[in-house]
Amino acid sequence: MPERFVVIMAGGRGERFWPQSREATPKHLLPIVGDKPMLAQTVDRVAGVVPLANIFVLTTQAQLAGCRAACPGLPAANIVAEPMGRDTAAATGLAMLLVKQRNPAAAFAMLPADHVIHDTAEYAKLLQVAFESAESADVLVTLGIKPATPETGFGYIQQSGPWKKIGGRGVMAVKRFVEKPDLETAKGYLASGDYYWNAGMFVWRVPVVEAAFKAHAAKLYAGLQKVESAVKSSGQWDAALAALYPTLPRISVDYALMEKSTNVVVVPATFDWDDVGAWPAIAKHFTPDADGNVLRGLAMVEGGANNIVVSDDRHLTAVVGASDLVVVHTAEATLVCPKDRAQEIKALLERLKQDPAKTKFL
Amino acid sequence: MPERFVVIMAGGRGERFWPQSREATPKHLLPIVGDKPMLAQTVDRVAGVVPLANIFVLTTQAQLAGCRAACPGLPAANIVAEPMGRDTAAATGLAMLLVKQRNPAAAFAMLPADHVIHDTAEYAKLLQVAFESAESADVLVTLGIKPATPETGFGYIQQSGPWKKIGGRGVMAVKRFVEKPDLETAKGYLASGDYYWNAGMFVWRVPVVEAAFKAHAAKLYAGLQKVESAVKSSGQWDAALAALYPTLPRISVDYALMEKSTNVVVVPATFDWDDVGAWPAIAKHFTPDADGNVLRGLAMVEGGANNIVVSDDRHLTAVVGASDLVVVHTAEATLVCPKDRAQEIKALLERLKQDPAKTKFL
Repeated sequence: MPERFVVIMAGGRGERFWPQSREATPKHLLPIVGDKPMLAQTVDRVAGVVPLANIFVLTTQAQLAGCRAACPGLPAANIVAEPMGRDTAAATGLAMLLVKQRNPAAAFAMLPADHVIHDTAEYAKLLQVAFESAESADVLVTLGIKPATPETGFGYIQQSGPWKKIGGRGVMAVKRFVEKPDLETAKGYLASGDYYWNAGMFVWRVPVVEAAFKAHAAKLYAGLQKVESAVKSSGQWDAALAALYPTLPRISVDYALMEKSTNVVVVPATFDWDDVGAWPAIAKHFTPDADGNVLRGLAMVEGGANNIVVSDDRHLTAVVGASDLVVVHTAEATLVCPKDRAQEIKALLERLKQDPAKTKFL
Repeated sequence: MPERFVVIMAGGRGERFWPQSREATPKHLLPIVGDKPMLAQTVDRVAGVVPLANIFVLTTQAQLAGCRAACPGLPAANIVAEPMGRDTAAATGLAMLLVKQRNPAAAFAMLPADHVIHDTAEYAKLLQVAFESAESADVLVTLGIKPATPETGFGYIQQSGPWKKIGGRGVMAVKRFVEKPDLETAKGYLASGDYYWNAGMFVWRVPVVEAAFKAHAAKLYAGLQKVESAVKSSGQWDAALAALYPTLPRISVDYALMEKSTNVVVVPATFDWDDVGAWPAIAKHFTPDADGNVLRGLAMVEGGANNIVVSDDRHLTAVVGASDLVVVHTAEATLVCPKDRAQEIKALLERLKQDPAKTKFL
């Protein structure tokens, strides 16, 4: 069996979980759901599939210390910060270079740090199916989520029929990757039964993804080659990245590679999955009180229903006579927002960015 | 001119301003409106009418230190704590004994500690009119507020026509004191033009109010006489009150004296007046932003209108996409409540009382 690696993508800003999520402590460094940071839960899940020494975490400079603290079981050198965000194709390239340096023939998975998956056994099984698929042919493997609703916040993957049976599971050939659809289109996708949500979970071998860069993203590939040479000659990742990363084109991996490649297959996910995109999404992961209120920490609701109230263990946060609110208290800031207006938190954070006296709350 | 005193009644619990108001820091010890505690503002207002040495504050044991801190200009001995609350008739009796010990012929005003009155000059003028009225005849004088709305939260005073002109102002004879009406009745009172709100502001001479106790509240009067004798023989107020105050009947001054007396007159108030009964009532005392939001401390509203958001200078409290809420943050607790449900804060506090782990938030 060839060597396997996992690279966990932990660079998200997590603005949608403000005020718990901040610039240095985004969603994946918080126990938004569960009792550990989401990143630590992700490491636990993949630790059954690859050795800890083969797990990398890609993050940002601001989150580097937090990621190391959240992953005490990983070698510190495996937690790598991009000098700045250059979108997901550059991050994929960096992941490829990190794995290639260890083993140029290895397969590796790229996985988001902040998803909720409870069925760890099925997840491990499917990840192995994806690795076996990637090792069995020159394909780019993705894990696709069977859509439950016509979501407009995800890209979709259209399958074109069975590809192979791997580990007893059916893996499908992919017809195309499509970007986030409008609602009518999403309804059509859902009705057709041929589409999966693109959850950003990929598995491939180094030579196969490298060939895809070369074929479909030549400018980015040239930049990655420069990084590789610089590291080879100096042995210094930090210096090479600082000098060259800013020159890499900003482009998403979906657009750069997945939408253009014809050798893509999808493993339909048979585990539960939730990307917990914003505060209202946490409700389904907790047991509500008799009135449908989700209460975390010292939180109370009097005469109200279906609220999400998140406090800490010392500060009492009380909702009286109101329903369908998200109320989140932290030591520095408090948010009150109707569940169906949570997308407007972004506008608040834009205002904070404009006000020097308030940027400390970002 | 006979000697004049003011006794400020500062025993309220102020539950309706939770979480800013707490058991030891009720509304009158907070700058709910204005930049000093409401009690200090009340002292400032009456300081133009009587000397500081003649101003008493009646409060509770829990609030004694807070009242002394809020009134550094008053002699500490003038700030007196009831051993426990025994309703307003007992407090009136204690006020009478305190003043009587200083001057048995004096007139004194009894005034609430936590009302907002901006027109200090007119207020002082009317208080003087009330004192002159009380000194001119054996009457119980009250200041009545011309009703602006059919309030059901106040008792009412019905006038029966002019009594005297005092200091150039018309003082009216009183037909009767009535308790809090229902809405229909209150509408009738408002339409008739003969009714005033009973704001709990009284002025009388010691012998006149003492005669009223004797005539209409014999049991309470007997208790007060025992307190008076005990203080006379021992010189110890605290011991006398601790022993005898618990034996005094619990009864309101309105019911014990005002509803039964026929020698009552009313000075119609010509100053602005607001009892600021709960959080929603503070809005009219502050300049709102363009969307009608009242923001105190580090408070923001994004995409919402007509909220009241009270924070402090270090903690950011943000409302996103919600309107007509009261949101109050303090270091210990946070409240979120629609303005029109503020009366339900009481139910929350009842639940806190039942839970030993949460009584510290009362």
